[in-house]
Amino acid sequence: MKSSLLVIALASLLGCGLGYSYKTEWFETKVDHFGYGNNDTFQMRYLFNDDHFDSTQHKPVVFFYAGNEGDIESFANNSGLMWDWAPEFKALLVFAEHRFYGQSMPYGNKSYSDPKYYGYLTVEQALADYADFLFMMGKRFAPNSKIVAFGGSYGGMLAAWMRIKYPWLIDAALASSAPILQFQDVTPCEAYNLAVTKPFALEGQKCADNIRKSWIALENKAKTGTNGLDFVRANFKLCQKIDASNYTAVRDWLYDSYGNLAMMNYPYSTDFIKKVPGHPVRESCKFLQNDFASDDDLLRGIYQAMNVFHNFSGNVKCNDLNGANGALSDDGWNVQTCNEMVMPFCGDGKTDMFYPYAWNFDQFRAKCEKKYRITPDLYKAQTTFGAKDIRSASNIVFTNGDIDPWSSGGVLHSLGHSLPSILIKGGAHHYDLRARHPLDTKEVIHARQLAKMYIRKWIHERH
Amino acid sequence: MKSSLLVIALASLLGCGLGYSYKTEWFETKVDHFGYGNNDTFQMRYLFNDDHFDSTQHKPVVFFYAGNEGDIESFANNSGLMWDWAPEFKALLVFAEHRFYGQSMPYGNKSYSDPKYYGYLTVEQALADYADFLFMMGKRFAPNSKIVAFGGSYGGMLAAWMRIKYPWLIDAALASSAPILQFQDVTPCEAYNLAVTKPFALEGQKCADNIRKSWIALENKAKTGTNGLDFVRANFKLCQKIDASNYTAVRDWLYDSYGNLAMMNYPYSTDFIKKVPGHPVRESCKFLQNDFASDDDLLRGIYQAMNVFHNFSGNVKCNDLNGANGALSDDGWNVQTCNEMVMPFCGDGKTDMFYPYAWNFDQFRAKCEKKYRITPDLYKAQTTFGAKDIRSASNIVFTNGDIDPWSSGGVLHSLGHSLPSILIKGGAHHYDLRARHPLDTKEVIHARQLAKMYIRKWIHERH
Repeated sequence: MKSSLLVIALASLLGCGLGYSYKTEWFETKVDHFGYGNNDTFQMRYLFNDDHFDSTQHKPVVFFYAGNEGDIESFANNSGLMWDWAPEFKALLVFAEHRFYGQSMPYGNKSYSDPKYYGYLTVEQALADYADFLFMMGKRFAPNSKIVAFGGSYGGMLAAWMRIKYPWLIDAALASSAPILQFQDVTPCEAYNLAVTKPFALEGQKCADNIRKSWIALENKAKTGTNGLDFVRANFKLCQKIDASNYTAVRDWLYDSYGNLAMMNYPYSTDFIKKVPGHPVRESCKFLQNDFASDDDLLRGIYQAMNVFHNFSGNVKCNDLNGANGALSDDGWNVQTCNEMVMPFCGDGKTDMFYPYAWNFDQFRAKCEKKYRITPDLYKAQTTFGAKDIRSASNIVFTNGDIDPWSSGGVLHSLGHSLPSILIKGGAHHYDLRARHPLDTKEVIHARQLAKMYIRKWIHERH
Repeated sequence: MKSSLLVIALASLLGCGLGYSYKTEWFETKVDHFGYGNNDTFQMRYLFNDDHFDSTQHKPVVFFYAGNEGDIESFANNSGLMWDWAPEFKALLVFAEHRFYGQSMPYGNKSYSDPKYYGYLTVEQALADYADFLFMMGKRFAPNSKIVAFGGSYGGMLAAWMRIKYPWLIDAALASSAPILQFQDVTPCEAYNLAVTKPFALEGQKCADNIRKSWIALENKAKTGTNGLDFVRANFKLCQKIDASNYTAVRDWLYDSYGNLAMMNYPYSTDFIKKVPGHPVRESCKFLQNDFASDDDLLRGIYQAMNVFHNFSGNVKCNDLNGANGALSDDGWNVQTCNEMVMPFCGDGKTDMFYPYAWNFDQFRAKCEKKYRITPDLYKAQTTFGAKDIRSASNIVFTNGDIDPWSSGGVLHSLGHSLPSILIKGGAHHYDLRARHPLDTKEVIHARQLAKMYIRKWIHERH
């Protein structure tokens, strides 16, 4: 369920009008980088902009965005930091699209039809795509280029892991809101729900309390049969019909929406997943500061709170239960949580504002096997990437917002020499990676300055 | 052709009588660690000895041998250094067998029948086997174990790469005679032949000169037709018939044999590939210090020189042209040179003691595609493991003998902080990894002391 939450970065930028310009090219690489029984290749899309690139400077600089689970154009358009820094670094900008997302489909329309295809959707294969690309393109960039990896969310994980696994190709990395610790036995499964709760509780404990109560109210409605369910459907303006067997889809939709509100909790209006106002959690909580006399009143309040996320534009006729994460398919990320990116989530419904539920790996595995014919590898990410035991790595700056839900699995303290961590007070999901904005907080401005100082230093030190 | 040279470590220890004792166990792991379309698993063999293991000490120590291209028992029996150090470190000894070698055949007898099976014989998959094993077994070893990887030759490459790729699982590594630089554009293709020539030239320039002349003599014989070829067959006591079309097999056999003599050039008699006397190159060159009056005389001298390697025991009735590397099959390593371990070799036949030949990747690729239906990836090793650009790594000590042929691709100078290199004057192939011996040179004794100091220091530093 929570699998879709990381899909935050899948922005739909239509109409955003930032107007970054880039060229689109394709790079041919192998589908299987670690075996030779399958010689298939595919075309990986990448975008680049060399407006500010000075390939003749002593150490030419390349900013490489490690594309995550979505269309690479969204990431290019929502990583304004790279565009903002490019003139100063005279940097080439390159954005590589992650296999099995956007237009980089190794097996075209068939890519998600069978595990024999989407079985190749793994982190290591994606990193190897980027490594192949950077090794081969390095000469084209400029012989002595210094390459800085950037990424937010899962892209931040990839940026960090690129530096950890391919330090000869990546000189430094900025990993923004990268939950590289969100794994079994590394981070308690409660952590994420607590982190989502935090910004709501900060807007008044009553807001979080009302949300917590609403799950019971919703359940009560479901229990009353058709009448109750009709109320729920009408109240939340749902496109779909619901019944007793699938009413939990409403719960999941609400749950994801709170996560999205928390992630998008920037001080100015954005149009990343959906159009939301500035401080959307605050706007949302404004509808939940009362004591409600009845379940009906409470759920009406919840609907208004939801509207901040789902209908800020005022154009939405009905709410699609499958649309919590915008217009994008969750197929890819769901597959990834079913192979290596197994992230345990749970909550007691007391310390967090949700309903209580346990983390049950056996159940999770059964679902993955049924839905995707894939057996999740619970410890693969730790085995392969070390989780918090990365003190031998270097030149990675981890940034996290302290009210970002995904800070639950983020690196909030330095994990070793030259692995600094920057915590952005009041910052939401990879806030620092966004373009500068007149309403930016002084905390994010400071965080960017600090991160830039590290990147500069590391480029300077590399020979 | 040269592919078989790295198979040095494939010792046949039958009758050696060192008598190390170990238990044999099996570990189940995935055939494909990087994809989820294939859920096959296989049993990886490993050996262990806990006679000296103290799991209660502050930092329990595990010595892990990263098995290379052969039966793991051979490596366990020929890495006496680990056994010699175990009491002092109170270390657990573990020797893991490389997939597709020895008894660790992922697809049993079919393993080498089709690229859909042996396509999984890659370095990354083997490292992932070891990582899976160490992650899962770590708890069994002892919770706070410090794990030191050891390996010689290709095993040394694996030991170094384990530390580079999985530093959270491997705390330090001793990479003995590990030619991690023997790749395209990193090391000139001439280097290996020059390095083989060196110990022969050291025994008198005439020895190397006579060997260089012998290729012409051999070719002259081949040109004279049946008579000449009969002489060659009789002179070299070949088991196989030869004709004009395959006489180069004799040349290849001689070539490999010189390499083996140089690798086994220890100061005492060993029984590693074949039984040889101490200082076998010197013994060999004793037959090549004359000016020979004729091709026949020269080739007779070459035969006697060969006998030092091929018939020191005196039991050999005829020489098997396919047996330059002992009783072992070269299948596995040949596959690996055809996928990722592409090592360019060439020579001018002037500065080295061989016949001139060029490195032609297109030809090499065509051979691989024809024989194995595999397309070699010329730059994969560099992309994946960084070749000499590993300054971000740490805690690896590289040891090389300065008369070891494979020192051509070895790390002879420190590549970064805590990546020391120890050059063993007069040392042959992974000499330091052998058990202590009364005839050991002071240079190897010193090298072992130095290596041990580094290992101790790194264990001490890890927390």
